[in-house]
Amino acid sequence: MVASVTRTAIRLADGRELLYFDEKPGIDRSRPDQRDLVPTPTVSEIRYDVPVDQWVVIAGHRQTRTHLPPTTECPLCPSTPGGPTEIPADDYDVVVFENRFPSLSQATDPPVAAPLDDGAGDGLFVRRAGIGRCEVVCFTADHHTSFSHLSPERVATVLAAWTDRTRALSALPGVEQVFVFENRGEEIGVTLAHPHGQIYAYPFVPPRTMRMVATAERHRATRGTCLFCAVLHAEEAAGVRVVAATPGWVAFVPHAARWPFEVHLYPRRHVPDLTALDAAERAEFPELYLDVLRRFDGIFGTQMPYIAGWHQAPVRVGHELAHLFLQVFSIRRAPNKLKYLAGSESAMGVFINDVAPERAAELLRDAR
Amino acid sequence: MVASVTRTAIRLADGRELLYFDEKPGIDRSRPDQRDLVPTPTVSEIRYDVPVDQWVVIAGHRQTRTHLPPTTECPLCPSTPGGPTEIPADDYDVVVFENRFPSLSQATDPPVAAPLDDGAGDGLFVRRAGIGRCEVVCFTADHHTSFSHLSPERVATVLAAWTDRTRALSALPGVEQVFVFENRGEEIGVTLAHPHGQIYAYPFVPPRTMRMVATAERHRATRGTCLFCAVLHAEEAAGVRVVAATPGWVAFVPHAARWPFEVHLYPRRHVPDLTALDAAERAEFPELYLDVLRRFDGIFGTQMPYIAGWHQAPVRVGHELAHLFLQVFSIRRAPNKLKYLAGSESAMGVFINDVAPERAAELLRDAR
Repeated sequence: MVASVTRTAIRLADGRELLYFDEKPGIDRSRPDQRDLVPTPTVSEIRYDVPVDQWVVIAGHRQTRTHLPPTTECPLCPSTPGGPTEIPADDYDVVVFENRFPSLSQATDPPVAAPLDDGAGDGLFVRRAGIGRCEVVCFTADHHTSFSHLSPERVATVLAAWTDRTRALSALPGVEQVFVFENRGEEIGVTLAHPHGQIYAYPFVPPRTMRMVATAERHRATRGTCLFCAVLHAEEAAGVRVVAATPGWVAFVPHAARWPFEVHLYPRRHVPDLTALDAAERAEFPELYLDVLRRFDGIFGTQMPYIAGWHQAPVRVGHELAHLFLQVFSIRRAPNKLKYLAGSESAMGVFINDVAPERAAELLRDAR
Repeated sequence: MVASVTRTAIRLADGRELLYFDEKPGIDRSRPDQRDLVPTPTVSEIRYDVPVDQWVVIAGHRQTRTHLPPTTECPLCPSTPGGPTEIPADDYDVVVFENRFPSLSQATDPPVAAPLDDGAGDGLFVRRAGIGRCEVVCFTADHHTSFSHLSPERVATVLAAWTDRTRALSALPGVEQVFVFENRGEEIGVTLAHPHGQIYAYPFVPPRTMRMVATAERHRATRGTCLFCAVLHAEEAAGVRVVAATPGWVAFVPHAARWPFEVHLYPRRHVPDLTALDAAERAEFPELYLDVLRRFDGIFGTQMPYIAGWHQAPVRVGHELAHLFLQVFSIRRAPNKLKYLAGSESAMGVFINDVAPERAAELLRDAR
């Protein structure tokens, strides 16, 4: 917890936890949730895809979740006298609360009992309860803005909240990975326009993380160094894909970028996750990230849809091998064209990128 | 080549190969391409994503490709006296030709010479020419129909063309995998409405195939059987996810389906690829596949966007371990809702499926 941020925890009417992260001390956060909310049952489970050797989350209860409500009904705005929302207060800086329609939960009800068809499955139909946690992170009380327009001070508060949640969720029973992310734009299916992100605490190490940990392990065994530190140094030496940098961070388009516009923000120091960042790294991050996001918006002069996700070390597996980085990418490849994941990407896992990474870096450097 | 289908090869004005697959013998296919086409340069390359341990295709020349032209300019319709298209003939059954804007090509020009920044890259920036081939498969001369409305006879002809191309492309230098697929629907980014599919001949084994081969190898080593035959038997025994079957084929929703509606069509016999199907399997496939596609359209009473892809054995690696199957899936999860690949799927590789596989199978069985 950053010293200047005050955290206050309350419970919503249905028992879910909500946390205020305030930039000023002493604000009264006792206003209760006055809605008549019944707890939403969660029946999430995870299933093992044996041939592909990966877990898949099956969350059959989420089909009824809130879908693009009009602004007046935004559940992420502060409450008003006649309009209670998810946030009881009439204003806030940053708020984090448990998702009402979570894909993963500490209390999946009913828990998955004996597997449906295990007798016949011969070990091929593996199922478990979808233990974990899904949280929503509101970046600002202002419905009509976006992350790229937050102040650096606010981004520092968001970073403090992300860090707090990484520490807290990593300590929950059964959690193996904490994934902090933001989906921005209707083009990628965002159902609520209010500036917000999410956090998933998974009960397994995600496939992409597993691959990176395995590669880092081989690199460490053969070369004795951190793979990600090596990538960082090589990108800086090459220079052609670097977009921006500070003393503690480097932002670059990766050599084999999968997306038309993709930037990775690495801390130069080898740190496993958000909780390990030092004061200087925390102080530099907001300006750098805002610069990168504004460059995204500057490429075509429109708000870019994007996905931003923190790759953190798993809670247990290969914790010391991973190197924290933030991946930001857009599916927009031209002013009126999106990159779709069709047959090659979705069925085979082979990405076709129509924008050369060096060209993307050049466009990002020239944007603004 | 199925005996009843006649194959005729010609060259288009810019040198690309085009093949007619005719259901009746003796049709004159000598009409030349009368367009004044200059060869389109292809500068495709593949790059190795070292941390994730996967190849990515970079095809920076494709940004100008044809994008949703009006029907009168459809390049996949037969030619008319005043309107030459990609197909010189004034009618056809099934046509296959080399994509004018390929992601992979036998002649990437200029070839990738010395890597741009290899000296600095320390082995982290691996690049190669994007050797391979991309073909377009036109299923019918009728612009205003869809695969699900083809006759079984036509589907048999399409299957014959797919089989021919699998054999031919597998023999090309540098090709490691032949991927036959169809993207259907603007919702998944299809740029041409004319019913057509594609074939990619990759110069590497795709990530998903690599995983399945590795899992099949472990299964073979520990249990002595084919993993996919075991899955097939287990699904039939469980029954709850089976959608349709014939003596030679079974169609089921996989136990850990990633997509709201996903069906796998397995031949019961252990065959590696399309070239190994026997006459009975070829005869049964069209009715079964049409039945499955019509069930997809029947779920919500609208044409479903879908991706259909054949998982075939790699040309060399693990050829005897793989088991042919067709994967069909839709991103539509409700009449007015699509499944988007957002942070969890795109950055972490963790799929969240909102429709329980048993429920999807039930809806598919009840559709029609």
